[in-house]
Amino acid sequence: MRDEGRKKHSDVTSPSHSARRSASGEFAFIERLREQAHRRHNTNRQLSSSLIPHPSSLRNPSSLVLGIGDDAAVFRASSQADFCITTDLLIEEIDFRRQTTTPRFLGHKALAVSLSDIAAMGARPRFCLLSVGISADIWQTRFLDQFYKGFFALADEHGVALVGGDVSRTPERIVIDSIVIGETKHGRAVLRSGARPGDHIFVTGALGGAAAGLQLLEQGARLPSRSTRRTTSARDQLLFRQLRPTPRVEWGAWLGEKGLATTMIDLSDGLSSDLAHLCRESGVGALIDAAHVPSDPNLKRFKLEADPLSLALHGGEDYELLFTVRPRQARQLPAEIAGVSVTRIGEITDGVHGCQIKIGGRTQALKPAGFVHFN
Amino acid sequence: MRDEGRKKHSDVTSPSHSARRSASGEFAFIERLREQAHRRHNTNRQLSSSLIPHPSSLRNPSSLVLGIGDDAAVFRASSQADFCITTDLLIEEIDFRRQTTTPRFLGHKALAVSLSDIAAMGARPRFCLLSVGISADIWQTRFLDQFYKGFFALADEHGVALVGGDVSRTPERIVIDSIVIGETKHGRAVLRSGARPGDHIFVTGALGGAAAGLQLLEQGARLPSRSTRRTTSARDQLLFRQLRPTPRVEWGAWLGEKGLATTMIDLSDGLSSDLAHLCRESGVGALIDAAHVPSDPNLKRFKLEADPLSLALHGGEDYELLFTVRPRQARQLPAEIAGVSVTRIGEITDGVHGCQIKIGGRTQALKPAGFVHFN
Repeated sequence: MRDEGRKKHSDVTSPSHSARRSASGEFAFIERLREQAHRRHNTNRQLSSSLIPHPSSLRNPSSLVLGIGDDAAVFRASSQADFCITTDLLIEEIDFRRQTTTPRFLGHKALAVSLSDIAAMGARPRFCLLSVGISADIWQTRFLDQFYKGFFALADEHGVALVGGDVSRTPERIVIDSIVIGETKHGRAVLRSGARPGDHIFVTGALGGAAAGLQLLEQGARLPSRSTRRTTSARDQLLFRQLRPTPRVEWGAWLGEKGLATTMIDLSDGLSSDLAHLCRESGVGALIDAAHVPSDPNLKRFKLEADPLSLALHGGEDYELLFTVRPRQARQLPAEIAGVSVTRIGEITDGVHGCQIKIGGRTQALKPAGFVHFN
Repeated sequence: MRDEGRKKHSDVTSPSHSARRSASGEFAFIERLREQAHRRHNTNRQLSSSLIPHPSSLRNPSSLVLGIGDDAAVFRASSQADFCITTDLLIEEIDFRRQTTTPRFLGHKALAVSLSDIAAMGARPRFCLLSVGISADIWQTRFLDQFYKGFFALADEHGVALVGGDVSRTPERIVIDSIVIGETKHGRAVLRSGARPGDHIFVTGALGGAAAGLQLLEQGARLPSRSTRRTTSARDQLLFRQLRPTPRVEWGAWLGEKGLATTMIDLSDGLSSDLAHLCRESGVGALIDAAHVPSDPNLKRFKLEADPLSLALHGGEDYELLFTVRPRQARQLPAEIAGVSVTRIGEITDGVHGCQIKIGGRTQALKPAGFVHFN
C-alpha cells in the first residue's frame, strides 16, 4: 500500500545529512533512538571491559557488528560467520487491507519484506519467527491456515526454517511481525556506507509496478480468485507486484558471497528515498540517468495517477535491490540471476550536489518522495 | 493482565500428551504448526544435503538446534556457542491497558517478558529488537520517549544492546513486538524435555503477586505517580509485580552456565500450566507439596478473588523460573542469586499420574488453569 512506507530503525538520516530531519519528526525520533542505542552500547562495552568482568564464562562472547542504521542488524557468530536480523511490522489498514488481498498473499508478503532486508545485506536467509495477532472472529475462519500456506511456500522456496513466534488475540485488526535471520561470511555483510564516487549504481528487475498495483486496487481492481503468476494479464501482474512481492534473495546472497557490492539497500520506500538513505550513509551523492531507469513495462498500459518514470522513482514496495559496484568490477556482474535482470542506472558522485537525475539533456535534483508515517 | 496468557509457539502440547488439545483449538493449531515446521525443516535438510548443494559457500553453515516447542528457539553459532531467540507480542486491551499502566512500565515489561524467555533457556541476553506500532495521536505525546526510557533502563541493567526494530502507525491501538537474542555455551541451552523421575523441582522468588496486582488494578487501584520500587506499600508491590515484572536473568544464566538444571520454563501462564508444559515435553509427571509453594507474602493482606495458594498455582505472569535438578546436584544451588531466593516445591514422578499436588495429607490432580486466547 502506498499508505505504508517502512520506517524501520534502519531508515534513518545520519546527523551530518539531516535535510529531512526537520521535515519529519519520525526520522528525528529514530535518529535519536539510534544515537541512544549506540552510546549505550559503547558505554556498556567499556564498563564490561574495564570495571565489571563479563559474567558470562564464554571465552569469545558474540559481538555487535552493526546496530540500528541499515536494512538489518549484524552480529558476529563465529570467526567464520555473521548473522543479520531484521523485523517488520505489518498492520491491517496501514500496511494492507483485508478486502484487497488474500490470507495466502498476506502470509507470503509478511515473509517477503523481511527476506528482502536480509537480501539487501548480502546475506542468505536461514531462520524466521512470526508473531501474529488476530481477533477471535478471524480465529474461527480458515484465515490462519491459508496465511501460513503462503508463508511456508515462500519459506520452503528459500530453505528458511520457521523456528518460533507468538500467537495473540487482538481486539479487531490483524497484526503481523516477521523476523528473519540471515547468515554471511564474517565481515561480508553489505552495508549502506561503502559507496565511493565513481561506483556504478545498479538496480534489479523493474520499478514502479507495486505502486501501480496499489493504484489499481484503489480503483477497484481485484485479482481473480484462481489467478496464478504464470497465467496473468498485465493488470494482474501489477496487482501481484503489490500483493505478492518477490524478494531478490538470490541476487542478494550472490552479491554478498562474491563481495562485489560496495553498498546495498532494498527498495521499500522507493528509489528516490532509498537512494538518498544510501548516499547519506556513505556521505556521497548520485547521478541517475532517467533513460536507464527500468520502469515496469506494464505501467504504460494503464491510466495511472503518475507517469511511469515517477512511479519508478517514487513508488515504494518494489522490493528490488539497489546496489553499487566499483567500476572495474562491474563487468563481473551476470546479466541475470534466477531470471532477474540487473540494470546500471547511474553513478555515485561526491556529495556536493546530493542525488541528481538526468532527464533528457537536463540534470536536476532527485528529491526523496517516499511516505512517512508521522510528521 | 489475567486476560492475557502467552500463547507462544513454545506453549504447545506434544502429540503424545494431548490432554488439552481437544479442549483448545489454539493448542491444536500451534501443535500443527510445530509439526509442519519440523517436517519442512527435515525435508529441506535432506534436500540440501542430497539433491541440491547448499548454495552458500560457508563451510559450516549454522544449524538449527531447537525449533518451535520451548521458551525460545536455539541455533548453533559456532563450535563454542549457541544463540537463543524469542519474540513476544503485547497488544493493547489484550495484554495491557493504557489507563492502568505507564509508558515507562510498558517499555520495561515489553523487554522483561522476552528476557524471561531467554533466562528460561539458561542463556545470557545479548541483543534485542523492538517493533512498535502506535496511532498518530499517541505519536504527538511523550509516550514513546517514556516507553523507551523504561525499555533502555532494563536493557542497560543486563547489558543488552538494542540493535534494530520497526516503527509503524496503527489505526488506534498500541502494538509491541519484543525480540531478544541470548547466548549459551554450545549445547548448554536448558530445554523443557530433560526431566527424569526423582529430579527436584524448584521455583525462584514468590508466586501469585502478578495476578493479585491485576485484580487490584481491576478493583480500581493505581500506582501513585512517583512511587519507586524501594518505597512501596504491600499494595504497590503487587501492582509492580503485574506492571513491571522482574525477569530472573541472573538465575537463568547461572543455571545455564553451571549446567545444573535438567529442564527450565518461565512462569508466564501460571505454575499449574507451565509445570504441565514441562512435564509433557519430558514425558514425566510431578508431585508438588502445597506447603512449600512460595506464595507472595503480600497476598494475604488483601481481599482477592482467590486464596493465596490458588493465585500462586494458577495466576500467570509472575515471570519466575521453574526448573528441575538431579537430586544429588540439588545441594549445589545457592540460597539466592541477585537477592532472589529459590524454593524446592516438589519432585518429578513417572508420568502415570500426571501432575499432582499434596495439600494437607491429601494428594490430588493439579489441573492446568491458565488462560487461552482462543478455544
